[in-house]
Amino acid sequence: MNASKELLTDIYQLTMAYGYWKSGLANRRAVYHLFFRRKPFGGSFAVAAGLELAAKMIETFKFEKDDLDYLRSLKCRDGQSLFEEAFLKELQNLKLTVSLDGVPEGTPVFPYEPLLRVEGPIMQAQLLETMLLNIINFQTLIATKAARICTAAGDDEVIEFGVRRAQGPDGAISAGRAAYIGGCHATSTALVGKLYDIPVKGTQAHSFIMAFESETEAFEAYAKTFPADSVFLVDTYDSIEGVKRAISVAKKQTDSRFNFAGVRLDSGDLAHLSIEIRRLLDESGFPDAKIVASNELDEFIIRDLKQQGAKIDVWGVGTKLVTAFDQPALDGVYKLAAVDDAHGQLNYKLKISEQLVKVTDPGVLQVRRFEDQNGYIADMIYDLGLGAKEECELIAPLDPTKVKKITPRMKGRDLLEPVIKKGELITKFPKLSDVRAKSLEEVKKLHPSLRRFLYPAPFFVGLERRLFDKKIELIEKAKRCKH
Amino acid sequence: MNASKELLTDIYQLTMAYGYWKSGLANRRAVYHLFFRRKPFGGSFAVAAGLELAAKMIETFKFEKDDLDYLRSLKCRDGQSLFEEAFLKELQNLKLTVSLDGVPEGTPVFPYEPLLRVEGPIMQAQLLETMLLNIINFQTLIATKAARICTAAGDDEVIEFGVRRAQGPDGAISAGRAAYIGGCHATSTALVGKLYDIPVKGTQAHSFIMAFESETEAFEAYAKTFPADSVFLVDTYDSIEGVKRAISVAKKQTDSRFNFAGVRLDSGDLAHLSIEIRRLLDESGFPDAKIVASNELDEFIIRDLKQQGAKIDVWGVGTKLVTAFDQPALDGVYKLAAVDDAHGQLNYKLKISEQLVKVTDPGVLQVRRFEDQNGYIADMIYDLGLGAKEECELIAPLDPTKVKKITPRMKGRDLLEPVIKKGELITKFPKLSDVRAKSLEEVKKLHPSLRRFLYPAPFFVGLERRLFDKKIELIEKAKRCKH
Repeated sequence: MNASKELLTDIYQLTMAYGYWKSGLANRRAVYHLFFRRKPFGGSFAVAAGLELAAKMIETFKFEKDDLDYLRSLKCRDGQSLFEEAFLKELQNLKLTVSLDGVPEGTPVFPYEPLLRVEGPIMQAQLLETMLLNIINFQTLIATKAARICTAAGDDEVIEFGVRRAQGPDGAISAGRAAYIGGCHATSTALVGKLYDIPVKGTQAHSFIMAFESETEAFEAYAKTFPADSVFLVDTYDSIEGVKRAISVAKKQTDSRFNFAGVRLDSGDLAHLSIEIRRLLDESGFPDAKIVASNELDEFIIRDLKQQGAKIDVWGVGTKLVTAFDQPALDGVYKLAAVDDAHGQLNYKLKISEQLVKVTDPGVLQVRRFEDQNGYIADMIYDLGLGAKEECELIAPLDPTKVKKITPRMKGRDLLEPVIKKGELITKFPKLSDVRAKSLEEVKKLHPSLRRFLYPAPFFVGLERRLFDKKIELIEKAKRCKH
Repeated sequence: MNASKELLTDIYQLTMAYGYWKSGLANRRAVYHLFFRRKPFGGSFAVAAGLELAAKMIETFKFEKDDLDYLRSLKCRDGQSLFEEAFLKELQNLKLTVSLDGVPEGTPVFPYEPLLRVEGPIMQAQLLETMLLNIINFQTLIATKAARICTAAGDDEVIEFGVRRAQGPDGAISAGRAAYIGGCHATSTALVGKLYDIPVKGTQAHSFIMAFESETEAFEAYAKTFPADSVFLVDTYDSIEGVKRAISVAKKQTDSRFNFAGVRLDSGDLAHLSIEIRRLLDESGFPDAKIVASNELDEFIIRDLKQQGAKIDVWGVGTKLVTAFDQPALDGVYKLAAVDDAHGQLNYKLKISEQLVKVTDPGVLQVRRFEDQNGYIADMIYDLGLGAKEECELIAPLDPTKVKKITPRMKGRDLLEPVIKKGELITKFPKLSDVRAKSLEEVKKLHPSLRRFLYPAPFFVGLERRLFDKKIELIEKAKRCKH
C-alpha cells in the first residue's frame, strides 16, 4: 500500500504535460473545473467530499527519484525514450504553483456545479486531473450514499461495516472516511478509526460462536472478555433460541461491570425477528439491550423494515454502502474552461458536443447558493470575470425557457472557498466530526421532495444570464470556426 | 496511502482474538476456507486472483508500535481499556505460524470451491480474515470482469483506463493488476505499470486539443512530441473532420521517426464512425493506423459493436471494468470448517442455516479438477482426511439427486497448492505476464456455453460422496444438539 500519488495518474497526463512543455505552452495560465453530470443513485443531490484529501495531495505533490527512473525507462515504439531528459529534470524540480478553490466537504451539491476550480500553469493543472477525479469522485459518491442510508435510518445509529467487500485496501479506508462525512456514526475498520479519529464498533462472527463447544459457552466467554460491551451474535444456530441463551447468560453474570449491551442479527427476516426479540428482551428485564442488524442492507431495505415496524436500533451497513453498489462510480469530469493565449489574454473555452448536456461551461466559475428560512431556493453558476448583480436572472442550462429571477432580498453565499493559493495551503480544515455534523444539518435543509430516494423533485441550478449568453456566443463561434 | 494492513481489519477480529486468548483457545488449530457463492455478473465462472498479494500480506504481518498504541487507546463503554496490556504484548510478539494453500492466480473457479485454505492457531487465522477477503474478493472480481471483456474483444487489444473513476487510489492500483491477469494488454495508470511491470498506454485528452488555437495545431504539436507514437484524439469538435485533419497533419510530417499510429474516438456512434474512419484512413494510405475507442464500454457493448461491423482495433475500458459496475462486489466469505477440541482432536464444523445454500462445507478441503482434451469435465470438492478414491461419486451440493461418476481414466489435478507452511513462504510466484497468459489459456478451455455472458450452462461442481455424507451427518447432529 505504499504508492506514489504522482504516478497514480493516466500516463497521458504525463505525455500531454510533455507536449505542452515541448510546445512552449507549459506555463500558460489555465482554469479547470471538476463537476459531475449524473445525479447519483437516482436522487437529486450529492454530498461533496474529498476536498481536504485533494488539497493535501496537491500540497505534497513532488516527483521522487524512483518515479522519474520509471518514467525514464519508458520507450516509444521505435525504442527511443518516451521522455527526454530535460523534461524529467523539469518534473524533478517541479513545485506546484496552482491555486485551488473548492466546495467544503459535507455540502450538498448538484449536477454541473464546479466542486473544484484549479487555476495555474496548464502543465501543472493537467498533471493533477486524474488524482483529483479519483479522490473527489469516490469520496463524494460514498458520502452521498451514506447520507441516503442515514436519512432512511432516521435517528438510529448506522455503522459502516464494509471492509471485506470493499474495492481494495484503500476502497475500505476512503469509504470509511466518506461514510462518516455522510452521517454514519462509526466504522468497523480499525485503521479507519485510527487514521480519521472515527469511533470503531463491532461484535463477533459466527466462527467465534462455532469455535466453542456450544453457543452458551461462546456467549459466556464473550461476556467475560467484554463485560461492559456484551453484544451477542444470536443467529449462528437459531435466532430466537440464541436470544434466549443470551438472556440466560446475561442473567447469570455477577461482574459489576457487566452490561447486556445488545444482540446482533445477521440473517433471516429482520422485521419479524427483531419484533419478537425486542419482546423477549423487554420481558426479561433488558429494555436497554439494543438490537443490531446487518445483512445486505441499503436505504431501501432500511426504509421498508422501519415501515414494517422492525425494532432495530443499530444498522450495520457494508457492501451496499462502501461499494455504492447500485452506482459504483460518480461520473465526475475535469474540464478546461479558460486558457491564456500567446498574448497573456485569458480565452474562455468550451468543449462542444452534439448533446447540449455535454457542452461545458466556460470561464472562471463560482456557485452562489440562495436560501431563506425554509431552505435552499436555487443555485447560480456565474463567471467571476462577468460578475453577478444583486438582481439577476438564472437560466436552466438544459432548458433555456426555464428562468428564475434573483432579487436583492435573497440571501446568497458563494460555495467555492479558496484552499490553496499559488501552491500554498491557506485554509485550516475542520475536524471530520464537524464536517459530519454540518453535512447532516445541510442535508436536512433540503426540501423533503429533494431527499426522496427515487424520482425526487429537481433543484433549480441556473447559469447567470451573462454567462449563459457568453456560452451561446462561444458555441456559435466554435461551430463556425475551422479548426 | 501509507497504511497498516494489520489494522485494516474489522475491529471484531481483534476483539474475537482477545476472546480466544482470554478463554485459552488462542492456539487451538483451526481450518478456514475462503469461497464465494454467487457467480459474478451472471456468468458461470470467476478467475481466481490475489493469491500473491494475500501471501505477501501474511508473510509481512506484524503489529507495529503505532498500531498497538491505537488499540491501547480504545475504551469500553465504562471507560476501561478495551484490551488488557498482556494481550497487546501478545500481539506485539505475534509471529504468524499459519499455513496457506491457495488456487493459483488466473485459474477459473466456481461457486463453493475454496480459493484459499488457512490452517493454524485460531487466533491468527481469525486476524487474517478481513484482509484476505478484501484482497481476494476484489482481485477475483476484476480479473473476472476483465476476462469477460477480453472474451468480447477477441483478438483485439484491451487497455484498462479506469483510474479516475476507481474506488479510491488503491481501487485503481488493485484493479489495474487484476485487469491484467484477466487478459487486458495494458493499463493507462503509470503507477500500475511501475508496480507490476505492466505496459502503459495513453493518448491525449480534449483539454490538450483545446489548449491550442486549433485542432490542427494541437495535432502538429503532438506529432512533434511523439513522432513514433502519434495517436490523435479526433472527436473534440467533429470526429470525421478531426480524422481528416489528422490525416493531413500526418501527410505533412517529414521526421523519419514519424508513425501515424492511430486515432482515438471517445464519443458518438462508435460502429458507424469507426467504419467511416477506417475507410478514410485506408484511402489516405494509412492502413496501419489503428482506431482506439472508448466511452462507457463493457463486454456487452463491445460484443454488439463487433457484431455491427465496428472497425475498432483497441478498446479503452474504464469505469465499467475497474469498478465492476454491474456487480461491484464478489460475495466471498471466510468460514470455519474445523477446530481442535480440548483434547487436540480436530472437530469438523459447519454453520447451519435455514437455506441449504448457506450451510458451509466442513473439513480440510481440496478441489480436484477433472479434464480431458475437450476441456474441463467437473470439479470435486473433497476432504483431505476422508480422502478421495480414483473411482468415486460427486454429489451436487444444492441438489443431491444430481450425481456424477468419476472413473480412473479421468485426469484430475488438485487446485489448491501449498503457499505458506507454518508462516514461511514456500513457493515462488510466477511473473504476472505468465499469470495473464495462463488465465487466457484456461478461460479458453471452458466450453463456449460456460463462457456465455448471461444464462450460461452450469459447470458441475460436486462434493465427493463421503464428504457429502459427513456433511449431512453434521447437519443432523447440529439440529438435534442443544447449544
